[in-house]
Amino acid sequence: MIIIEFILKDIPNLKYFEWNKIFKLVSGESLQNFKLAYETYGVLNKEKSNAILIFHALSGSSHVYRDNSNMDGWWDEMVGPDKPFNIEKYFLICVNVLGGCYGSTGPSSYDQKNNKEYRLDFPMITIHDMVNAIKLLIDHIGIRKLFSITGGSIGGMQALDWVIHYPEMTRSVILMATAAYATTFNIAFNEVQRQSIFSDPNWNNGNYSKERPPINGLRLARQIGHITYLSEDSMKKKFGRNLQNNPKLLFQFTQEFEVESYLHYKGTSFTERFDANSYLYITKAIDYFDIRKNQKLIPAFNHIKNTKFLILSFSSDWLYPTRQSKEIVYALKSNEIDVSFAEIDINYGHDSFLIDCLDLKEITFNFLNNIKI
Amino acid sequence: MIIIEFILKDIPNLKYFEWNKIFKLVSGESLQNFKLAYETYGVLNKEKSNAILIFHALSGSSHVYRDNSNMDGWWDEMVGPDKPFNIEKYFLICVNVLGGCYGSTGPSSYDQKNNKEYRLDFPMITIHDMVNAIKLLIDHIGIRKLFSITGGSIGGMQALDWVIHYPEMTRSVILMATAAYATTFNIAFNEVQRQSIFSDPNWNNGNYSKERPPINGLRLARQIGHITYLSEDSMKKKFGRNLQNNPKLLFQFTQEFEVESYLHYKGTSFTERFDANSYLYITKAIDYFDIRKNQKLIPAFNHIKNTKFLILSFSSDWLYPTRQSKEIVYALKSNEIDVSFAEIDINYGHDSFLIDCLDLKEITFNFLNNIKI
Repeated sequence: MIIIEFILKDIPNLKYFEWNKIFKLVSGESLQNFKLAYETYGVLNKEKSNAILIFHALSGSSHVYRDNSNMDGWWDEMVGPDKPFNIEKYFLICVNVLGGCYGSTGPSSYDQKNNKEYRLDFPMITIHDMVNAIKLLIDHIGIRKLFSITGGSIGGMQALDWVIHYPEMTRSVILMATAAYATTFNIAFNEVQRQSIFSDPNWNNGNYSKERPPINGLRLARQIGHITYLSEDSMKKKFGRNLQNNPKLLFQFTQEFEVESYLHYKGTSFTERFDANSYLYITKAIDYFDIRKNQKLIPAFNHIKNTKFLILSFSSDWLYPTRQSKEIVYALKSNEIDVSFAEIDINYGHDSFLIDCLDLKEITFNFLNNIKI
Repeated sequence: MIIIEFILKDIPNLKYFEWNKIFKLVSGESLQNFKLAYETYGVLNKEKSNAILIFHALSGSSHVYRDNSNMDGWWDEMVGPDKPFNIEKYFLICVNVLGGCYGSTGPSSYDQKNNKEYRLDFPMITIHDMVNAIKLLIDHIGIRKLFSITGGSIGGMQALDWVIHYPEMTRSVILMATAAYATTFNIAFNEVQRQSIFSDPNWNNGNYSKERPPINGLRLARQIGHITYLSEDSMKKKFGRNLQNNPKLLFQFTQEFEVESYLHYKGTSFTERFDANSYLYITKAIDYFDIRKNQKLIPAFNHIKNTKFLILSFSSDWLYPTRQSKEIVYALKSNEIDVSFAEIDINYGHDSFLIDCLDLKEITFNFLNNIKI
């Protein structure tokens, strides 16, 4: 967490929105107050009609774009001048989610009521709570109707929740690699990642010290997660059965294969930039997500009018596979809502929305460009 | 491990084969001696021509069939009178693998040289070592040519290794849900399971006490493994987003969803019947498995003659998917070897070979029945 604080100080563009009234949560609990860390890029036009709200995924932050900071943005491929989310044309807003660890109120924040960090006293957060908090910020900025909202993975879940609850507040929606509800499979994988953290004695029921966070547990959680973000094919092409360092097998319990070493590296670097308790809360928020009404998706959209949708899935994404996007497309079409859909043929797996992908850029650019500001 | 000893005492059919000479391993290391726990069913005919060798998978044992014991066999669906592996017609042999924990020598065995249990001093074992040890037992029984050899998952890997190294010693081979080599994906999933065990402080570098084994780590490993054994579809049909016990969400870090509770139950029951160190050794043996020659599969089979193959895959198996079976079929065909192949359409995932599956039974029965003893 020390490192995260350091990261935040390195972002000149970072702003905070503070809410000092009671904020009711879906669970029935409430927060006495909260703050959200957010960043904006570009200029909001006079009519306030060119704003795009970007929702980040599990491990993201408000830092969607490098801009004048010293730190890469998590979506530099898609944001910038000459990028689909063109900062010379649009006013972009990206907010760290409630429950997160990049400046917004979460389990590692200070609880004024109890004079200590929340830890597991932080109430359970849902995707709808994340959206409701961001809604207050958008109201505060004074935007009544967003030009577009977008997100991949759980960012897409937030966009879906937004358009269902605040349909008059956006003209368009772009969803990537997402789903209308967490499947049994999603829950199962999230649960073993949580168990990885719970099993680390340093976790200490959430009350770890800054000096001894549950690194082993969080690393293992991320390693499991990372497998689910990649495709079998991309892993095979990248690592095959290549051995790490040695021309021969060592016959030892070390990371003998390159893929083992890669996962270890990815997991370790994640522990330097993420809070274990936030990981628990955000994965629970995913599990709770289900926008269906009585397990039916069509009625969830029956009040939406005049909103254009673009839905993108990735052929090699097995965590949120194309069929989950198609369910949304089908339900939107059944409500005669304007929806475009493409499955992008790419072998990079779930994380495809985060990489340099020409199809993704072109389709997104064209979709936005065809809507007049 | 106390429980495993108890289980073994409950199997009247259990026999031991002891080898008291140096046994060289693929790694270059060797064992001074070893023993194998095994069971046989049916009667070996005078010509010794009706023997079928069954190789077990990761968590299996020699107890392939309930017979006159008080304990279910792991393959009761396929073994017995009127079953494909008919004990009234064939003489069945099933052996606990070297490195295992069901009676055969493994990391929990007593090392006479050092007057203590092996633990991590146990040398690394490969699939070929497992096969070589069993080969000595088959020689000891006096069988020169098996009627058939079979196995699912890593049982299939052993069968493949057997037929490549001892092609004259079997007339036929039945492979289920298996592969010619562990893929990058297989290694990645095995590695996070091993990391689960390593991360448990009770593991203590392999030197856990019988009273305090690394239950949390082994449970988590099994939970991850179990997800990979099932299909997304079967999990969805079985559990959906059903809640455990409560009609409403609790918004707690408990096992709120049925699938979480199921995984927890499966993981916990596994810790009562398996040794954590054996789990490490056997998963490493899987990772090392690769029968290709210079990454080419066709040359691996070019010396095999007069052996009939049956290869079965399962449509919903994403751990060892059909394409991995087809690679073997293709390589066998390229060598003009007699091979039958079927992908069985079933939604139960990798573990399909273990359940009551009519297609599996019929195809296996017919294949065996068409070869004259």
